[in-house]
Formats: sequence, C-alpha cells, structure tokens
Amino acid sequence: MCTAISCLCQGHFFGRNLDLDRCYGESVTVMPRGFSFPYRLSQPQQGPYAMVGMAHVHAGCPLYYDAVNERGLCMAGLRFPQHGLGCAPQEEGKTPLAPYELIPYLLSRCANASQAVEALEGIRLEALPVSQDLPLVPLHWMVCDEERCLVIEPEGQGLVVLENPVGVLTNEPDLSCQLAHLDRYLSLEAAAPENRFAPTLPLRSRSLGTGAVGLPGDWSSESRFVRAAFTRWNAVPPEGDGGGLANAFHILCSVCQPRGCARTAEGLYEQTVYTCVCDTRRGVYYYTTYENAQLCAVDLHREDLNGAHLSSYPLLHRQQVHFQN
Amino acid sequence: MCTAISCLCQGHFFGRNLDLDRCYGESVTVMPRGFSFPYRLSQPQQGPYAMVGMAHVHAGCPLYYDAVNERGLCMAGLRFPQHGLGCAPQEEGKTPLAPYELIPYLLSRCANASQAVEALEGIRLEALPVSQDLPLVPLHWMVCDEERCLVIEPEGQGLVVLENPVGVLTNEPDLSCQLAHLDRYLSLEAAAPENRFAPTLPLRSRSLGTGAVGLPGDWSSESRFVRAAFTRWNAVPPEGDGGGLANAFHILCSVCQPRGCARTAEGLYEQTVYTCVCDTRRGVYYYTTYENAQLCAVDLHREDLNGAHLSSYPLLHRQQVHFQN
Amino acid sequence: MCTAISCLCQGHFFGRNLDLDRCYGESVTVMPRGFSFPYRLSQPQQGPYAMVGMAHVHAGCPLYYDAVNERGLCMAGLRFPQHGLGCAPQEEGKTPLAPYELIPYLLSRCANASQAVEALEGIRLEALPVSQDLPLVPLHWMVCDEERCLVIEPEGQGLVVLENPVGVLTNEPDLSCQLAHLDRYLSLEAAAPENRFAPTLPLRSRSLGTGAVGLPGDWSSESRFVRAAFTRWNAVPPEGDGGGLANAFHILCSVCQPRGCARTAEGLYEQTVYTCVCDTRRGVYYYTTYENAQLCAVDLHREDLNGAHLSSYPLLHRQQVHFQN
Amino acid sequence: MCTAISCLCQGHFFGRNLDLDRCYGESVTVMPRGFSFPYRLSQPQQGPYAMVGMAHVHAGCPLYYDAVNERGLCMAGLRFPQHGLGCAPQEEGKTPLAPYELIPYLLSRCANASQAVEALEGIRLEALPVSQDLPLVPLHWMVCDEERCLVIEPEGQGLVVLENPVGVLTNEPDLSCQLAHLDRYLSLEAAAPENRFAPTLPLRSRSLGTGAVGLPGDWSSESRFVRAAFTRWNAVPPEGDGGGLANAFHILCSVCQPRGCARTAEGLYEQTVYTCVCDTRRGVYYYTTYENAQLCAVDLHREDLNGAHLSSYPLLHRQQVHFQN
Repeated sequence: MCTAISCLCQGHFFGRNLDLDRCYGESVTVMPRGFSFPYRLSQPQQGPYAMVGMAHVHAGCPLYYDAVNERGLCMAGLRFPQHGLGCAPQEEGKTPLAPYELIPYLLSRCANASQAVEALEGIRLEALPVSQDLPLVPLHWMVCDEERCLVIEPEGQGLVVLENPVGVLTNEPDLSCQLAHLDRYLSLEAAAPENRFAPTLPLRSRSLGTGAVGLPGDWSSESRFVRAAFTRWNAVPPEGDGGGLANAFHILCSVCQPRGCARTAEGLYEQTVYTCVCDTRRGVYYYTTYENAQLCAVDLHREDLNGAHLSSYPLLHRQQVHFQN
Repeated sequence: MCTAISCLCQGHFFGRNLDLDRCYGESVTVMPRGFSFPYRLSQPQQGPYAMVGMAHVHAGCPLYYDAVNERGLCMAGLRFPQHGLGCAPQEEGKTPLAPYELIPYLLSRCANASQAVEALEGIRLEALPVSQDLPLVPLHWMVCDEERCLVIEPEGQGLVVLENPVGVLTNEPDLSCQLAHLDRYLSLEAAAPENRFAPTLPLRSRSLGTGAVGLPGDWSSESRFVRAAFTRWNAVPPEGDGGGLANAFHILCSVCQPRGCARTAEGLYEQTVYTCVCDTRRGVYYYTTYENAQLCAVDLHREDLNGAHLSSYPLLHRQQVHFQN
Repeated sequence: MCTAISCLCQGHFFGRNLDLDRCYGESVTVMPRGFSFPYRLSQPQQGPYAMVGMAHVHAGCPLYYDAVNERGLCMAGLRFPQHGLGCAPQEEGKTPLAPYELIPYLLSRCANASQAVEALEGIRLEALPVSQDLPLVPLHWMVCDEERCLVIEPEGQGLVVLENPVGVLTNEPDLSCQLAHLDRYLSLEAAAPENRFAPTLPLRSRSLGTGAVGLPGDWSSESRFVRAAFTRWNAVPPEGDGGGLANAFHILCSVCQPRGCARTAEGLYEQTVYTCVCDTRRGVYYYTTYENAQLCAVDLHREDLNGAHLSSYPLLHRQQVHFQN
Repeated sequence: MCTAISCLCQGHFFGRNLDLDRCYGESVTVMPRGFSFPYRLSQPQQGPYAMVGMAHVHAGCPLYYDAVNERGLCMAGLRFPQHGLGCAPQEEGKTPLAPYELIPYLLSRCANASQAVEALEGIRLEALPVSQDLPLVPLHWMVCDEERCLVIEPEGQGLVVLENPVGVLTNEPDLSCQLAHLDRYLSLEAAAPENRFAPTLPLRSRSLGTGAVGLPGDWSSESRFVRAAFTRWNAVPPEGDGGGLANAFHILCSVCQPRGCARTAEGLYEQTVYTCVCDTRRGVYYYTTYENAQLCAVDLHREDLNGAHLSSYPLLHRQQVHFQN
C-alpha cells in the first residue's frame, strides 16, 4: 500500500511511495504561512510555518498525504486498514481534529518532532470524513525531523507515539510487530558472505547479494518494511552532488510496486502512483510518477511563504524523454 | 550482476540492468551498415544491418554489452563467472571470433533469432581478450526477437543454444538450473490470495501482495531471476502511449541493485550502472543511469544507417530535474 | 526454545517440545488430589483434581513445565524472555503466587479453560524464584481444554488472557504479533499447487510439497510457530487406533530442534530435550526424549488419585531398540 | 518424495526417508552370500557379499529400496520422475540389468564405492519393469561407503556418476542443480547470529535459531535437500553410546513428511512411510515407521550369511508404548 522512509545521509531525506489502485487527482501543494486552514470543528487558523506536500485539494482544503514544512519537519499518513481510527470522545481542553487535518495542523505549528509530540497531547481525533462521498480510512503516521523519527498510531480510543529507530513505515501490522518481525533478519548482510553453513563443504557464493538471501521480495506490507529497512541501512549514496537524493529514490524504488503484481479482488492493480522525496533542509519536494521517471520538483522557497493562498502543481504523468540524437 | 528481459507487451521491449562495481566509460553507440568491424582473426566485415547499443569503444572497436539491430533482433551478454568461456579448438570451416565480437557479428548479419542460431553453427569462440589489460570474462547471452527468446551458453568446448520461455536471464547458475529453480515458485500469485493454509482459521491478508510471499528479495543472481520473472509475467503496462516502455523499465527496476546492498570483498559496491530498454520495433534505445532517473534515448533511425562511422553518445549521469516552480 | 500445541483430532491431544541446552532432571510426576501443594505465600492447599505432567521436583515441590489434570484441562509454560514477569503489586483479595505455582494452582482447582480464566482473576504473580540458585525466567502459558485454547501473557504489571485460535504457542514475540505474522502465509497449501505465477508458462511442480514453498524452516521462535501451525492444520492422522497420538507427535516433530542447529553464545546446543503428548481424555502422558525415540507413558488412572504423595517417573533417556532377529 | 543421507559422525550412518502415498508391503530383507539373484537378462548369480535392506519381495525376488552390505557399502534408490530411465541400447560386453536389479547387483559384488564405480562401467540399464502391473519409475541412486558418497543419475542414454560432497540426496532436480541451489544458503548458520543487517540499529535475536532464517521449511524436494544438508552438517550427536544413530534419525526427522502436508492430486497423502538408518560398520539396519516411533532393527550378523535363502522381517507398524506405571 505505502512505504515511507526517513534517511539522514548526505542531507536529510524523507520520502514515500503512494501505492494505490487509482488516482484522486493529486498535486504538489504549497500552503504558505498566511493560509487559513478551514478546520471543521474549530476556527480557521494560520500556522507560523509554510509547508509543501502532496495533496488532493478538496473544496479549497488541502488533504495532505505527506508534506515537509519550512523547518524540515515532515510527516506522511499511511493506510492502517485493520485498526481503528484512534478517535477519542470529547474531552475538556482537547482540540478536536478530523484525521485529515492532522498533517497540516502539526506541520503548520511545530518546528520539530518533539514539538509535534507535545502538540499531539492537546488534540483528539474525531471521526469526520472530508465529505460524504469520501470514506474515513484508518491511518497511522510517520513524523520526523533530522534527529527523531516517530510513528503515531491509533490505539483504542486515542493515539500513541512510538520511537521508530528504523526510519521506515509501511502499513499493517502495527510498528511494534514490524520491529519484532525485523529482528528475524538481523543476520542478513550486504557483504560477500562467508560460508557459515558448513565450513568444510566447498560452498561458494555464485553472485554478490547472497548474504541477503532470505530477504522477502513480495510487496506485502511486512515484506516492504523489511526490504526498505535493509536498503535504507545498507544503501550508499552515489558520489557527488545529488547523491543523497538519488539514494533516497533508490531505497523507495526497492519497494516500488509494479502495476499488476498486486491485484485487488475487483481486478484493479495497486501500483506506486508516485514516489516522493523531500530534501528537508532545502525545502524541495521531488517526485516521480509511475509513468514518468524524471524527477519533477517544487521548491518551497520559490514561493511567497507569507502569502495566503495555496499554490498547486499538478502531477506530470507523461514520460519526459531526453533524446540525445 | 545483470538482468536481461524480453517482453512482448504493447510492443516488443528488450532491456537489461548492468550491475557492476565500476564504470568503463560506456556510450550508446550506433554502428551503421557501412562500418567495417575489425575482426581479430578474419577480415573486417560490414553487415547488412545497422545496430544501436551500449558499448565501450576501445581503439575504434565497439565492445557491445547489449544492442538491437534495425530488424529488431537484440542481444545482451551477461557475466557467467563460474563457467568456462565456451571456446573451441580450430575446426575447418568455422569462423573464429573473440567473445566480444559475438554481438556485432550476429546483429550485423541476422534479421531474427532463427538466423542467429544458424549463424552460430558456423562460428567458434577463441579465447582472445580485447587487450592485454582487459581480462577475458566468461559470458552467456540472451538473443531474441519478438517471437523467440534464446540463451547461448558455453558448455565444455563450445556453445549451446537453449530456448528461454521465461524471457529473463541473470547470471549463475546455468539456464536449466534457473528454470528448475523457478518451478519452485509456481504457486505464487499477484491476485488477492485465498486462505489455503487452514480454511477454518480466521486468517486474513493484511495487505495486497500476500499472494507472492516467498518471492525472494535479495539481489543474488537466482533471486533476481525469480523476481524478474514474476514481474515480467504479472506486470501490466500503464494505459496510454508509452505504457509498454514504462512497464519494461518497472520490471527491470524490481531487480535494480541499490548501491551498497551488495558489497564486494574489496569493499566496492555493485550497483545498477545503467538500465536500458530497446523499443525493438522503433529502433530506439532508452536508458537511465543510477544517478539520473530521466529516460535518455538514442534513435537508430535518426542516424545515417548507411554511413561508415560509429556515432557515440556518452551516458548522461547527471540528474535532470524538472522544476515546476 | 519450546513449542506447544493443542490438537482436536481423533481425540484431544496437547503436547510440547521442551527445547533447552541442558536437563534439570525432569520426571513425569503425578500429583494426586490429596497432595498439599506448599504455596510460598499462602497455606498449603489440596485441589479437587489430580494431575500428571513433566516436573522438576525441588525439595518436594513439583515445578511443572506442562501437565494435564483428570478433567482434561492442560497447561504448559514457555519461555518468554524478552518480556517482564507480569508480576503485580499487592492487592486486596488477590492470592499471591510465584510464577512456578501457576500450573499446579490452576490445574488442581479448575475443570476447564473457562474456570481457569475466572481463577486467574483472583490471583496475582509475585517475583519469587523457587530458590536462590534458580533464576526467575519470564514465561507465558498455553491453557486449554477440548473447546478453548488460551494464552496467558504478562503485560505490564499483570497477566492478560488471549484466545488462541491456532492452538500453537512458541516463545517470542507475543501472541498477537505471532498471529499477525502467520497471516503472511495464508496462501500456502498442502495440495498440489496450480501454476498461478504465470499460467501461460510451462511451469511444473517438480515434487509434492511445492504449495508450501515459503514456509520457514529454521528453528527461530517465529518460524516454529508458522511451521507448527501449518502441520497442526494440515496433518491427517494415520488410520487406526493411535492415529491421533501419532499425529500429535509428528506435528511436534516438524519443529523438533536437532542438537547442534541452534548454538548458544556459550557453545552449548539447544535441543528438544523431550517431546510430550497428553491424551487429555484418557489422562495418559506420553513422551519421547532426544535420545530415545520410543514412546514412554504414565497413565494418571493407574495411580491412586486420592493419595497424598507425588509419584515420579524419571525420564528414560536410553534408546530402546526392538531387534527383530 | 524421499531423502537419503550419509553421515560420518560417531560411526558411519546411512539412512533415508521413504515418502510415499501408499505402502507396497515392505520388509527388512537379508540376502545372504549364497542367494542366487534371478537376473532377468543374465544368469542368476551369487555375490560374495551379503546385504540387508528394505525390500518389497516380489515372486521371490527382493526389490531393494535401500540396503547396506557386509562391507559397509550402501545404496538407496530415489524417485527422479522428470528424467529418463537412463537405459542404454545393447552394447557388446555390457551386462544388461533392469533398474530394480542395480542395488543387489552392486552391493552383492562391490566392497566399496570405488568398486561400484568400476562395476557400473560394465553394465547398462534396460527398460524392464518387475512385472506388467508395476510401472517403471525413473530413479537416481546414492551409493556410499565411509569415504566416498556418489550419486548415479540417468543422463540421456546412460548413467553418470557424480561425487556428492554434501551426503544428501532427494529427488528433482538433478544433483548439479541441487548443489548450485544449496550455494544460495551458505551464509546461514547454527550459531547465535550477529547483527549484520544494520549494526547501528538495536536489532536483537529473539530466539536461538535466527541465524538460519531463510532455510526453507516446506517439503518440496529442493527444500528437503537444503534443510537436510543444514542439519546433516550442523547436528551434533548426543553424548554417549548410540549418539551417532540418534543423530542420523534426527537429521532425517528434520525432513520427515507429516501425513497431510503434501496432498496428491488424487487426494492421497504423501508421508514418510519409514525412516531407516544403517549402522554400516555393524551391519545393523534400524527403522521407524510413521505409526511406530520405536527403533526396530535387523542385525545382518545374526543371520547365516552363507545361507542361500532370503530372510524377511515385516515392518512393525504398530506403536510400541512403554508404560512406566
């Protein structure tokens, strides 16, 4: 369904694959400091921080899938279908938010992950869909800056915040099971492996990569978690400028979902609709789509960050080929 | 090390990942009909067919890694390190070729795979390196047109030709073992799987992709064969023009080697130096590099096919970003 | 470390492998109704029910690893090393028990799993080791009768009771993660599989068993859970009397730990010290040891169940061979 | 289908699982030196060596599945269904044998594996079934003594002899593919593994056995080969007399096929009908059956080895329980 990563390697890069069987008309959308976000259950508010991210803009309201703010705090929501919504009953002093409001709420007012944790204590989720025709989908979120990577998960009637040392999030099951599952693979390695099976037998590695035999290769949520973790922690950026960015795209590419390899019961195909990587230090949002391999980008700092209006850049889905002759 | 595919799907596409721990200065090189290939052990010859492919041009001689000719016959050489070279002793009536001459020899004179099989009967390989400082590396080759996909493998003192129904080739072990190995995975599926484990237990698929659990995810040669075969046979091109091309790149992407995930004994990193896809009907050679995600292309038909000189287009390794703002 | 199963199949059979790197001098021990169990923190008590199980008898007190009572309620404790003990602070009205007292406490007074759940509500664990020289080891327990299979796990300062539809327990991680993990394998099957990988390719199953490719074969706790679950739900007893018993032993045998295949950091070998199966309807406790393949048995109903003294039968570790000539 | 092992460890032990969906009425059969084997295409002959093994005795002729002779040479035939029979056309000076005659032919006249290789050069197989109603099944064979382990496989119109350093044989594919496949697993280990995945992440092994994660657990022929090889080379006999024997049974037990886990297309169940282990130094043939866990045995040296008649001991299929009370 989705994979998110945070990677501190020649810069700090945060990215995700959005794996879905359809498009909802996404665009890279900049929300400047002066934009009044139309919260459903409280007054519209402006945050001190501008942000850029992928959103479906619905009736003037950006529904963010993932975004980074001008301070480098970033966040992505990922489907978490077999859990509840984490909505809590009314409580004195807690700001009620619809689930889709959580990303703009936190990114517009928090400068880092620790502030996000604090802010979370003051809110509660309410089960409000964006509109009648858009269902409420259970989500969990990865929130991070350069230093901390957190996961926010619904648990009973509320949300819990968990440290995520791995810097990867997919979907089901919950983070603690994913981490337990990951422990199974601790002996896999990128290096040319030794013969530990039977040192007196003439076994030989027939190709590089044998040290990671056992790494799962399917596109289930647990397998993507393990494979993304392996590439996240073993990938080495190519040298030169832009290495960290290319590296982050390659990590996500290792769990990219080819169209057709995961068929839904309705005969649709889940595919990586887009892959994005935020350069959180520079405030640049890069993405590719399933159809277009070229990196497209929107630079937060080329916008008027004090403005009051959203800027939206529709996804470029058409392959851009550079002919050399 | 490498993965090659042939895919008949909204066109015929042939492609490969070149996975190496270094670059040799490759360029996309067009060899027109009038070029006299400097064979080492026989007279220079011109073939009736022009070709385009990836080559290291050494002293005016193109050492092709993979190429397609104007008739759509395509061929790639892949490392086969634990086998012999397939060189044969002198024999009356057999044309002697150095291993690196096999691709230009066949593609310049054969219109299809069947003609290549015939031509192979008239040649024998001789253990000649390109130069003193370039070692002789054992190879096997995938040769195909739209209808047939063949693999040429050294066996003892000679070469054997095998049908390859899967349309995928990696490195070790030999094709017949790879095919035997692939049979293990025949029950994996792209569809949302049924509970066959224990129908009376409330097991549930926690995400799409569960039907392929068991698919290997590492980058060893056998695992890449299986995973590329699965995506090759299950991937569905995106709709619209360019779908077949994008599909072929996504198949290769599923076995792309992230830099760092396969470390050599010397501490170098094997990575997918380039990924190429030939549109064999149109004679266009597309590629991406590890550093540059955008598709670059060289169109055979924009060259003077009757010329006598090579045209070479160096690989563009620099990331080309399209800024939308 | 250990695997426990409950299997309703031509009778009800409950069993376990004890996987350890040493023996503590176990014996099959019958505790009759009249035995006063020397509880550490409360008065010695006699339960209404007699029981038979594997125990290390320490200073006259049976430390049960697993047991079945005369009503068919059975229970096994399994190591749960990365969790707490589940001990709770003092609380009015709760009977304090040492962890090792839980099995005799419940089996001596409960006729079925539901009564055990009730009884659990009245107790709390206290962190008391058997003696100074025996460490306190975190455990979780499987408790079951013919109808219900439950798992008791420490969670924070207390114990939780979970339904276990699978009827298998190993060690780490906790049951809910094990069940989530098991879902990954739902498409594996015992039947001769169809080619779902690529129906147009001539793939063929080279042997029976291919439908379960992907089933893990190592002896880690998670892999034993999955493999035991697969055999538990797919194994079919041999025909004739004794089929259910043989079946249960074969299920446990599929996750039996060969000595040497799991080496500890100290260079010791974890092995299946014994495998036991209780015929819960007949009150017979069967076992084999790593050294002796023959089933040995102790029949609860051949004892004086109203007695006041333990009867202990030391494990027979010597191979018993039946020579036919 | 079947697994055979040869293990030099506190003695030399040769054994096999016979995995079938039916029984043919096997018995442990001693063929003394004076028995005239009724060869179909040549004169009845007596060999210098007596042997004991598992056979179906058909019209006075023992059809051996596996056997050991008095010199410790042992041999087992295993199904090899997707290959030919290896039968050769008539040739001057070659003794024609039916496939089922190969085991008694070699064991009755060869003192060791090297003599068997020589003897093989003088024979050719002819496609003769035992009788009209018993089909000719393609087989390959493992032949070994303490020093050498060989595999005889049909290849085209003949048999090839291969060294088998692993000492394990299952069914399909051929030995060279099995050995290539085994190389994939060379980094698995019995020891408590280090964190090689990401040394800076707090990954931890949750149980012993994690070093072998990736070892296949299903019962396909390739998976049994790998798992049996791992246990063969890592298992450590229990201390004391009988350790080597118990060890060999445990290795075979790790690939024992539980009834029900491999269903045929006809709805039958392949199961390990019997497991045998020959103590080749002592000439004792031990076995267990799926229904009876106790070791039964026939000792070659308790027979009149100079006799002229077969002695047959029917398999004991009934569970032998030793009650301790």
